[in-house]
Amino acid sequence: MVKTGSIQLSTRGNADVKDITTEIARVINQSELRNGTVTVFCSSSTSALTTIEYESGCVNDLRRLFEEIIPRGREYAHNAKWHDGNGHSHVRAALLGPSLTIPFVEGRLTLGTWQQVIYIDFDVRSRNRELVLQIIGE
Amino acid sequence: MVKTGSIQLSTRGNADVKDITTEIARVINQSELRNGTVTVFCSSSTSALTTIEYESGCVNDLRRLFEEIIPRGREYAHNAKWHDGNGHSHVRAALLGPSLTIPFVEGRLTLGTWQQVIYIDFDVRSRNRELVLQIIGE
Amino acid sequence: MVKTGSIQLSTRGNADVKDITTEIARVINQSELRNGTVTVFCSSSTSALTTIEYESGCVNDLRRLFEEIIPRGREYAHNAKWHDGNGHSHVRAALLGPSLTIPFVEGRLTLGTWQQVIYIDFDVRSRNRELVLQIIGE
Repeated sequence: MVKTGSIQLSTRGNADVKDITTEIARVINQSELRNGTVTVFCSSSTSALTTIEYESGCVNDLRRLFEEIIPRGREYAHNAKWHDGNGHSHVRAALLGPSLTIPFVEGRLTLGTWQQVIYIDFDVRSRNRELVLQIIGE
Repeated sequence: MVKTGSIQLSTRGNADVKDITTEIARVINQSELRNGTVTVFCSSSTSALTTIEYESGCVNDLRRLFEEIIPRGREYAHNAKWHDGNGHSHVRAALLGPSLTIPFVEGRLTLGTWQQVIYIDFDVRSRNRELVLQIIGE
Repeated sequence: MVKTGSIQLSTRGNADVKDITTEIARVINQSELRNGTVTVFCSSSTSALTTIEYESGCVNDLRRLFEEIIPRGREYAHNAKWHDGNGHSHVRAALLGPSLTIPFVEGRLTLGTWQQVIYIDFDVRSRNRELVLQIIGE
């Protein structure tokens, strides 16, 4: 059986990191499916998903990585062409990826104790975002 | 219900980037499934998948990233051992990943307006490639 | 139909790379499902999954990449706060990602000839690990 859910988010941009674990678990509960997978998907080319231990140290270390390998303050071909200043946002999002598929068993996500699902908005301004949750199971 | 499709591609290699969004949408339509997920998979260790705004600026910025963090013109242990010159291709593909799962709802992929699915062939020569599309839904 | 499996691993840490292809194929066989997808998931925030040509050259080249872009021997905000010395492990795992979804067709994973599924334990000590395999198919 397939059930579609969503999560609404307000983000500040500039690698704003949101813990969305509780919202995903809520959507799984509401689906009344007990076993399966949830695919969380960003319908956006400037944001992405992964898991991490959601504490300020890890979050800041991850943000530093992106600033180091894909810095905001340099030239991008995208910016030269479109002048919207988010060339780095596109490259960061493409590298990390828009999709995350997580199993759930007996109604619970199979995350580790110190593992949270995060959404990172790499765009350069505040946005209202919607994530799609596609739940497949029984 | 599970339906298996495929996409055939001719690529030039050296981080050749192909927009495969239309082909994926076509396979979804042909499947006659309305809601579910499609898993797009590279059966290859020198190519990978992600999403991006498919315009030349973003594409070149992404290619620059790979050239910077995993440059072609240096030594690789793989090359020293096998002499096929694609050591960087393997590392790039492993980092970006071979699999992408995308929801579809009422027959449409849940991509953003400026978000396309791309296949990147990191190998060093022209190739004929086949991607597997596993569609699960109802 | 949904079937849940698992793989047990003993790892040495410090970017220890394990080829888990055979174990995944075995769990698919035991499931008696013929067509579908398997989602392999790390219930951990210091380890991750991808595919690669599993030979020592490629594996060492990939390990070098992580040492270069997320080196062990520097300061991390996570370490400053928690003193467990695995700040780099968290960032590496978040970048590579905890989840991999692979199609199987007629009982066989759709991997390429030179493509193996690998688990990388980025933590700094030996661990016993369990991966979750969620198989959806028919």
